[in-house]
Amino acid sequence: MNTAEIIHGLAANARAAAAKMRAFSTEKKNEALFAIADALESMKPQIIAANAEDVAAGLANGLSAALVDRLTLTDARFKSMVDGVRHVATLPDPVGEQIWERDRPSGIHIRKVRQPFGVIAVVFESRPNVFVDTAALCLKTSNAVILRGGNEAFKSNQALNAAVRAGLEKSGLPMDAVQMVETTDHAGVTELVRSVGLIDVAIPRGGERLIRAMCEAALIPVLKHYNGICHVYVDDKADLGMALSILDNAKTQRPGTCNAAECLLVHEKLAPMFLPMVKAWAADKGVALHDDGVGVEYLSMDLNIATVKGVEDAIEFINEHGSHHSDCIVTSDKERADLFLRDVDSAAVYWNASTRFTDGAEFGMGAEIGISTDKLHARGPMGLEELTTYKYTVTGDGVIRG
Amino acid sequence: MNTAEIIHGLAANARAAAAKMRAFSTEKKNEALFAIADALESMKPQIIAANAEDVAAGLANGLSAALVDRLTLTDARFKSMVDGVRHVATLPDPVGEQIWERDRPSGIHIRKVRQPFGVIAVVFESRPNVFVDTAALCLKTSNAVILRGGNEAFKSNQALNAAVRAGLEKSGLPMDAVQMVETTDHAGVTELVRSVGLIDVAIPRGGERLIRAMCEAALIPVLKHYNGICHVYVDDKADLGMALSILDNAKTQRPGTCNAAECLLVHEKLAPMFLPMVKAWAADKGVALHDDGVGVEYLSMDLNIATVKGVEDAIEFINEHGSHHSDCIVTSDKERADLFLRDVDSAAVYWNASTRFTDGAEFGMGAEIGISTDKLHARGPMGLEELTTYKYTVTGDGVIRG
Repeated sequence: MNTAEIIHGLAANARAAAAKMRAFSTEKKNEALFAIADALESMKPQIIAANAEDVAAGLANGLSAALVDRLTLTDARFKSMVDGVRHVATLPDPVGEQIWERDRPSGIHIRKVRQPFGVIAVVFESRPNVFVDTAALCLKTSNAVILRGGNEAFKSNQALNAAVRAGLEKSGLPMDAVQMVETTDHAGVTELVRSVGLIDVAIPRGGERLIRAMCEAALIPVLKHYNGICHVYVDDKADLGMALSILDNAKTQRPGTCNAAECLLVHEKLAPMFLPMVKAWAADKGVALHDDGVGVEYLSMDLNIATVKGVEDAIEFINEHGSHHSDCIVTSDKERADLFLRDVDSAAVYWNASTRFTDGAEFGMGAEIGISTDKLHARGPMGLEELTTYKYTVTGDGVIRG
Repeated sequence: MNTAEIIHGLAANARAAAAKMRAFSTEKKNEALFAIADALESMKPQIIAANAEDVAAGLANGLSAALVDRLTLTDARFKSMVDGVRHVATLPDPVGEQIWERDRPSGIHIRKVRQPFGVIAVVFESRPNVFVDTAALCLKTSNAVILRGGNEAFKSNQALNAAVRAGLEKSGLPMDAVQMVETTDHAGVTELVRSVGLIDVAIPRGGERLIRAMCEAALIPVLKHYNGICHVYVDDKADLGMALSILDNAKTQRPGTCNAAECLLVHEKLAPMFLPMVKAWAADKGVALHDDGVGVEYLSMDLNIATVKGVEDAIEFINEHGSHHSDCIVTSDKERADLFLRDVDSAAVYWNASTRFTDGAEFGMGAEIGISTDKLHARGPMGLEELTTYKYTVTGDGVIRG
């Protein structure tokens, strides 16, 4: 079989599994999640051994230390992964939830109800725990999922796949609700995103290059997160202690995350007073300051600084150079804050709070499959609800349109 | 300027207009809609003259009678188009509407608020009133729109564009909130759907060929409506009078619409009794019956018939051969109806009611920009709400992530 045939076969199996998934109650799905967690624990030795092979191959192939670290399933990461599956079982099930209902003068009664997408394809890189996290979220929402991980984690993913499918089998859910792409060529990804009618949506969980390649090839919708070029704008009416505290948190708490700040905007009137404070803070914390990094996603202890004429200027700067992810204004002026909150065209807009809060758990979603920088369907953190669509059910007593 | 430069220029103008649109209140937007309606009325002679030129050219070029009819702006259609603009002004404004708000233990307060997309591109065919309908819906939702109509309606659209922009100018809204693509080559459409970062979403309002071409080229999201292959399944526990009445309405009330039935499924036990009734009805109404039209969208007085073993078989048939648009079960058995409503994977699923109700006005949305057969973002009729995205506004008193 060539790659196209393999992917078509997986997609057809997934479609059939998705049709069966509709019949399972929340309780049954949760039971399956617990069975998967148990299977992961009982198959831990095989999984860790497979992961050790991947790590050894990675080291031999000269994978960077950062990538080797991301690839490695430590005991703590393994436990957190299994805990994650059991946590998803405790979350509310969005499937079947009624969004609204109405009676119409024609005599029809309409209900708008959340439904699974059907089949989701997820393409991810390096970290093998993503395989399990994603499978759990998709199963909880009655979706079938096809997972395509990075080649450097191939054996780890195979072992995780076996455990997840063992859990599904044990609990009587269709095993093909979770499938792994076992071809390693890039054509597999292209075939996935061109599977119109079989796969409903593709979600890349990886770098910008992967995402762009998927979007270029895609005929099916892609839910994506490009990058996080987040700004903190410090207004001349800001409390400077608060501004520095927010900047510090947004930049240094976890500089490698997408919701970390990459650019500080300072009101020009405030600059003479505030910039020396920023320089002292940067020296103390080991942050390198730049003035030529407009639109750069550093993901490191680097920060670009620019001055602006005021809030309107800041809004324009952010909308032009940011990535529509998370941006913050620090000010005591409500009118300026309201303008910023209204006009900055980002998924999450902050007033006197750190951009680091853009996160499914911090937003109270319970779990997260990613953060969307798209505007269609889902924007910002994507939880279980964002893995569903809806349908209208319409009932009548034989009513016809006049 | 080549086509790419022209489209890029339009998109940049639209982006700037979209940023300005955020500042206008509902009242101000409604004022602009009324000004547009007035401008259309005062410029009616020029519009009708331009339309007459298009019609004459169409006749000279051998356009089909059906297309010439769709192209023609009669007095009644002109009035209905202008009334439509004033009607949109009376509808509730979704922009700024709060979807939910919550306080989090961290100390942040989150609001999820509806927002305009920004810039929408709409590509449509033949009927010039679509230009005005679409502009009104996009303006009401604070979006800027770029419209690309069919070449056969080029002069009509130019005249309508002039009137709409005159209305915008008079009311102080940015004129570039509505722009028309005045290049006639297909490359213009391709450039539109590849304008990442400038155009947020593309909406085709036309045939399947147009939609497929746009999806193939697209790098931006496309909200689309492929086709309507709708089914009526008559269960052996159906009231036969009701079944025939629903079938008649779904097939014959307006056979050219996407929510008209194309296929009748009959429970095999019922077939000996019901099919003769169907044949008599078809003969009476002039409906041609087929048994080889599985998956065909007739849009005419033709109907395919198949027998099925029961509700499960009907569900499988519909999910495989339908277009996930609107499908109906006629039965007095609640259990079977519930199964049908749950498992048929369509935008609208009916129990004892005609599929013809799938329509923005019938669903109480006030207006409709189309019916989505997608599952992402919008499914089924798309009204004003479906022309918006959302953002999270997060406020705190200097709170940082721990």
